[in-house]
Amino acid sequence: MKRSIGAKTILFPTPVLIVGTYDAAGKANAAAVAWGGICCSDPVCVAVSLRKATYTHGNIVARKAFTVSIPSEKYVKEADYFGIASGRNEDKFSAAGLTPVKSGLVDAPYVKEFPVILECELFKTIEIGLHTQFIGQVKDVKADESVLTKEGLPDTKKILPITFDPAQRAYYGTGARLADAFSIGKK
Amino acid sequence: MKRSIGAKTILFPTPVLIVGTYDAAGKANAAAVAWGGICCSDPVCVAVSLRKATYTHGNIVARKAFTVSIPSEKYVKEADYFGIASGRNEDKFSAAGLTPVKSGLVDAPYVKEFPVILECELFKTIEIGLHTQFIGQVKDVKADESVLTKEGLPDTKKILPITFDPAQRAYYGTGARLADAFSIGKK
Repeated sequence: MKRSIGAKTILFPTPVLIVGTYDAAGKANAAAVAWGGICCSDPVCVAVSLRKATYTHGNIVARKAFTVSIPSEKYVKEADYFGIASGRNEDKFSAAGLTPVKSGLVDAPYVKEFPVILECELFKTIEIGLHTQFIGQVKDVKADESVLTKEGLPDTKKILPITFDPAQRAYYGTGARLADAFSIGKK
Repeated sequence: MKRSIGAKTILFPTPVLIVGTYDAAGKANAAAVAWGGICCSDPVCVAVSLRKATYTHGNIVARKAFTVSIPSEKYVKEADYFGIASGRNEDKFSAAGLTPVKSGLVDAPYVKEFPVILECELFKTIEIGLHTQFIGQVKDVKADESVLTKEGLPDTKKILPITFDPAQRAYYGTGARLADAFSIGKK
């Protein structure tokens, strides 16, 4: 018998997506977003939801672009900071000791030190309620050589991404490889 | 220096969401979806993206409701099967040996054996491209007593959710608790 716990924002896992934008003055900003994920394979699109009150919301509306940088476990402190502070009051890259890199493809910066990044052009804006969902078309994915396999694709075991538990408000690391997808279920 | 790997559907982590629906004949169906996540806090909404060719796509359009069930690691085989087979040709619940439970709140079934489930009413339908994004308003979250803390909220450590690596097409388990959110970044 399952217990009702109400209409809460609970899902497992949720990601830790660091959304990079420029403000009107050209200052690079980064914000942590757990409400998001891939939402289309063709065109390749990723969705990130932001409250209208956030600095990043205004930046995406103005610049029509954003990046998503994926932090490794060792950057959990910086990732959390990006979710606490506001670019309205602080230079978050500078405070976190991380480096903004201007994308050559879209009008937004990504985090140099994070191993995988997505460069996105604003594709659709969906007003849902408290959050606006920005759907970005992914123009390119870039990754550090150190997280690529011989075949040239990134690997969870090398990235060591962070997941977020919204019920317990905690971050988790990556566990063991369980199985090949589109394979184990054939049995 | 980062290497360009193209506009691919790569993000870490992505979830393994089992979307439950009824077809026109009232047969319960379940499909694995990795393109999705929470997209709004008020109203509480969750998004799942599906190709128009899928059986689940037609079911959501017709019934205007779906559930999301979160599998534990021990159900990785069943979760993968839900992503391989089509409800058009098979009774997937029966083949997987799992039990559909009719939601009392929305016109859709959830997976009894999975520890956390969300009951959703269709709220918005967004045509993106190959995928349609269905935004569901969460009417309730339900969880097994066994995954709840004393405070009555589910806990990653007890659920042991699965994450999906879309680049390597592999499933991963849950790692160690790294830190408290909205806390470690204050330092």
